[in-house]
Amino acid sequence: MSKQPQTAISPTRAENFPEWYQQVVRAADLAENSDVRGCMVIKPWGYAIWENIERRLDAMFKATGHENAYFPLFIPMSFLEKEAEHVEGFAKECAVVTHHRLEPDGKGGLQPAPSAKLEEPLIVRPTSETIIGATFARWVQSYRDLPILINQWANVVRWELRTRLFLRTAEFLWQEGHTVHATEAEAREETMRMLDVYADFAENTMAMPVIKGEKTAGERFPGAVSTFSIEALMQDRKALQAGTSHFLGQNFARAQNIKFQDENGQEVFAWTTSWGVSTRLIGGLVMTHGDDDGLMLPPKLAPAHVVILPIYRNDDEKTQVLAFCDALEKELAAQSFAGEPVRVRIDKRDLRGGEKKWQWVKRGVPIRAEIGPRDVASGKVFYGRRDSSAKLEAPRAEFVTNIANTLADIQQSLFARALEARKAATVQINDLATFKEFFASKDDEDSEGGGLAYCHFIESPAMDEILKSLKVTVRCVPLADADEPGKCIFTGQPSPRRGIFAKAY
Amino acid sequence: MSKQPQTAISPTRAENFPEWYQQVVRAADLAENSDVRGCMVIKPWGYAIWENIERRLDAMFKATGHENAYFPLFIPMSFLEKEAEHVEGFAKECAVVTHHRLEPDGKGGLQPAPSAKLEEPLIVRPTSETIIGATFARWVQSYRDLPILINQWANVVRWELRTRLFLRTAEFLWQEGHTVHATEAEAREETMRMLDVYADFAENTMAMPVIKGEKTAGERFPGAVSTFSIEALMQDRKALQAGTSHFLGQNFARAQNIKFQDENGQEVFAWTTSWGVSTRLIGGLVMTHGDDDGLMLPPKLAPAHVVILPIYRNDDEKTQVLAFCDALEKELAAQSFAGEPVRVRIDKRDLRGGEKKWQWVKRGVPIRAEIGPRDVASGKVFYGRRDSSAKLEAPRAEFVTNIANTLADIQQSLFARALEARKAATVQINDLATFKEFFASKDDEDSEGGGLAYCHFIESPAMDEILKSLKVTVRCVPLADADEPGKCIFTGQPSPRRGIFAKAY
Repeated sequence: MSKQPQTAISPTRAENFPEWYQQVVRAADLAENSDVRGCMVIKPWGYAIWENIERRLDAMFKATGHENAYFPLFIPMSFLEKEAEHVEGFAKECAVVTHHRLEPDGKGGLQPAPSAKLEEPLIVRPTSETIIGATFARWVQSYRDLPILINQWANVVRWELRTRLFLRTAEFLWQEGHTVHATEAEAREETMRMLDVYADFAENTMAMPVIKGEKTAGERFPGAVSTFSIEALMQDRKALQAGTSHFLGQNFARAQNIKFQDENGQEVFAWTTSWGVSTRLIGGLVMTHGDDDGLMLPPKLAPAHVVILPIYRNDDEKTQVLAFCDALEKELAAQSFAGEPVRVRIDKRDLRGGEKKWQWVKRGVPIRAEIGPRDVASGKVFYGRRDSSAKLEAPRAEFVTNIANTLADIQQSLFARALEARKAATVQINDLATFKEFFASKDDEDSEGGGLAYCHFIESPAMDEILKSLKVTVRCVPLADADEPGKCIFTGQPSPRRGIFAKAY
Repeated sequence: MSKQPQTAISPTRAENFPEWYQQVVRAADLAENSDVRGCMVIKPWGYAIWENIERRLDAMFKATGHENAYFPLFIPMSFLEKEAEHVEGFAKECAVVTHHRLEPDGKGGLQPAPSAKLEEPLIVRPTSETIIGATFARWVQSYRDLPILINQWANVVRWELRTRLFLRTAEFLWQEGHTVHATEAEAREETMRMLDVYADFAENTMAMPVIKGEKTAGERFPGAVSTFSIEALMQDRKALQAGTSHFLGQNFARAQNIKFQDENGQEVFAWTTSWGVSTRLIGGLVMTHGDDDGLMLPPKLAPAHVVILPIYRNDDEKTQVLAFCDALEKELAAQSFAGEPVRVRIDKRDLRGGEKKWQWVKRGVPIRAEIGPRDVASGKVFYGRRDSSAKLEAPRAEFVTNIANTLADIQQSLFARALEARKAATVQINDLATFKEFFASKDDEDSEGGGLAYCHFIESPAMDEILKSLKVTVRCVPLADADEPGKCIFTGQPSPRRGIFAKAY
C-alpha cells in the first residue's frame, strides 16, 4: 500500500486538538454522552481499560498495606457544614437529594412526593472525607487501632457546567484512599508513599511521564494542610493533574472528632490523609499517546495486546487461515507479559479487511497480526505495531516467543516518546515578558497550551491576577528539584525555588 | 480444653435468629450501620468477601461472552414514566435529586439553592433498565449489531423503611446484566443461561444449595414477561431469593424504542433480558453457614484460607516460632486452591492467644494453624477446621501438600450440611389445614420460617389472601420438577404442577 494521505481521525491534533480528542474517544469506542446532562456512558472498550487500571492500582494499594471497604453514597448535609474550608471548596456544586418517593402528579406524569420530603437533605458524595471520617471516629479508640489504611472504589458526583468525556464529567469513577495515623510523621510518610505509588503507576504502567510536586496554598485540596500531585503534559502542551495525595493534618480529625488514647493515656486527635485518581486517567492516556489515527494504548493497560485478523477469499482459504489463527491465539495466550497472560483476540467478523484493521488501529491495540493464505503457507506472521508504520514479518515461532519483548518495547517506546515531547515543551523562564509571550495564545479554553515553564515565584495577589488573565496556573513545586534561590518573576521578591506553570485541564 | 459452655455469639440461632444474624455480622466485622439512614458501611472483611464474589462471577460472565460497561447513576424522571408497569413497581420509593447546588442558609448552615432547582428531577438508579435501554436504542441499528451482552457492577438505591445489613438496605452493591437479542428464542436462552450461571455460582462457589424456578405473575419483576430466580433456604427455615434473571420480551424495547433492521430489511423491536445478584448474597452466606460461634466461610470465598497463629512466651521462642510461621506461610501460598493461590495470613498482633483465635473463628476462616515451640520442635502443625471441633495434627509437609484437599473438603462439607438442612425443612403439603399449621408461628417478622412446602396451586385472590395472612409467599415453580397434575390446595382448581411456598427475606 502507498502512504495514506488521510488520517483515520479528522480533524488532526494540529488542526483542532479538543475536537481531535472527542473524535478519538468516539472512534476508539471509549465513551459517549448519556441522556443525563454531564454523565457519561463508559463503553466496553473504555471500561476494560478502567478495569486494567483498577486491577493494577489495587494490587499496588494492597502491597502497601491497604484494604478496600465501601461507604455510603450519600452524605448528610450537616456533615458538610462541619469542616468550613472543605465546604467552601466542595459543597457548592453537587447533587442534592431532597425526597425519597415519587407519586403521580395528576397529569399522567410523576413528581417528588411532598409528603416524602427528607428532614435533612442528602448530598451525593463529591468526595468522602466527611462520611468516612465519621465512621473512622467510631473505629478509633486507642493507638492500638492505628493506622487505619482504607481505600474505596466508587462513583462520585460534582456538578459541572462544561463537561468533557473523562476529563470533566458530573459523575465519574475513582478510588479514594483514606488513612488515619497516630503521628504527624506517619501521616506525612503515607502521603508521600501514595504519591510515589501514583507516579510509579503513571510512568511504568500508563507510560505517561509525570512530575511529582506540592501544590501552592491557592491550589490545595479544601481543608488539607498540604496537597501533592503528579502532573503530566499532554500533546497540546497543557498540563493534566493526574492524581493527588493530601496530608490533612488534624483538620478533618478535629471536625469529625477522630480521637484516640495515646500510649500515655492522653486523648489526642489523629492525623489523616486522603488520595485519589479517577477515570480522568483515561483522558490522560488518550492525550498522551493518541495520534492522528486514534488511540495508542500502552500494552500494560490494553484490553487486547494482539488482534489477529484472518484474511481469506473462499471457504477453502477460510478453513486453513482460521485453523492457523486459532493455533496462534493459543500459543500467544500461553505467553505472559508484565505478570499477566498475553491477551489475544481473533476478529472473525464478516467485515472488509481494511475496515476491521482500522477499527483496531483507532482502538489503539498494540499489535495487529494479519494472517492470509500466504502466511499460512510460509509459516510466517505479518504484523504491525501501533507505535510504528513499519510492516513487520517474523516466523510464527519467533513471533510468539518474542511477543513479551515486543510488547515491552512498545511500552517503552510510548514512554520515551512522551518524555521527549515533554522535554521539547519545557522551558525555564526568568522574566515576565517572556512568560507572557510563552503563554500568549487565542483566548479561549480550547487553545493550545504553550508548555511547562519553570519559574521563580512567590504567591501573591499580583501573581494570581496575571495568571488569571493568561489562563495559566501554577501546577506544583517539583519535589525532585533542589533549592535554587532566585527572584519571583511576578513581583521581584526573593524566591527559594522554582514552580512549574502551565495551562491545564 | 473442656467443652465450652458458652458460644462466641450470643444469642444463639435457636434463641433469637434475627439477633444472632446481627451479632454475627458485627462479630465477623462484615458491616455496620452508617450515619445515613438505611445505608451500610461494608467493612474490609465483608468487602473482601464481596471482591471474591465479584471476581469469580465476573469471570463467569466473561466466559459466557459478556463485557462490562458503566452507565449513569441518575435516571431522568421522565424515563420512569415510559414503562408503566415498571414505574408502578419501582418508581415509588427512591432517592430524588432536585437541586444541583447548596448555598448558605443565612443561619450558619446550608440549604439547597432555590436558584439551582433542576428542571427535571433525577432519580438515583434503583435498577438501570430504563437508562441502559435508552443507550442501547442508540447502539442498535441493524441485526448485525446484535446480540449486545453487557454487565454493570454498580451501586443502586431503593428507599427502605425497615433495613437489615446486607439483606435490605437503601443503598447496595450489585451487578446488573442487560442484553439485547434479535429473536425471542435467543433472549429466552440468555435468560436461562444466566439463571444457570447463578445456580452454579451459588452451589459450587457459595456452597449454598438453590432451587431454580419461575416466579408467578404476582412475584414478577415489574415489566418482565417471565422472571426466574434461584431460591435458597436459610437456617431459620425462611427462603432467600438469591438472584433473578428476567425475560423482558419486547416490553422495554417498545418503551425505549430499541429497534433494528432485520435480515429482510424490516424494522422490528428487539428482545431484552436483565439479571442481577447483590451484596444480599453475603447475608445468604451468613445465614446458610454461620453457627453459634459466628461466620463460617466457604473456602472459595474466604479472604483468608488459612490463618497462622504464632504462640510463644519469650523472645527466644518468638524467633523460632515466627521463622517457622514465615516458612509455612510461603509454602502454603505456593499451593493453589480452586484456581487461585492459597491465601494465608499470619496474625502477629500482640494479643492473647485465645482472643486472637476467637476473632478468626468468628470471622469464619476455614483453617487455623496454631504454632508453638512444641510444634516447631516436632515439625508438626496443630490445626483446626472451622467446620468441625476436632483438634487436628499433621506433619508440616503433609499439611502443606494436603491444603487444597482440606479446603475442598471443607467447601464440600458446607454444601452437604446446607443441603441436609434444606431437605430436613422441606415437605410436600396437599391440604390447606396442614399448610396453615406448617406456617403457623408468632405473628411478627422475626419469627422462624417453617420451611419449604411443595404444594399444588393456581394463582387467585383467595390464595393471595391466605398467603398474606400467614406471611407466606410462593417462591417459584421449580424448573427441575416434572408436571404432576393435582389440585390447588387453596381453591381446589386443577393444577399442573407444584410450586414452593415459604416465608422469605
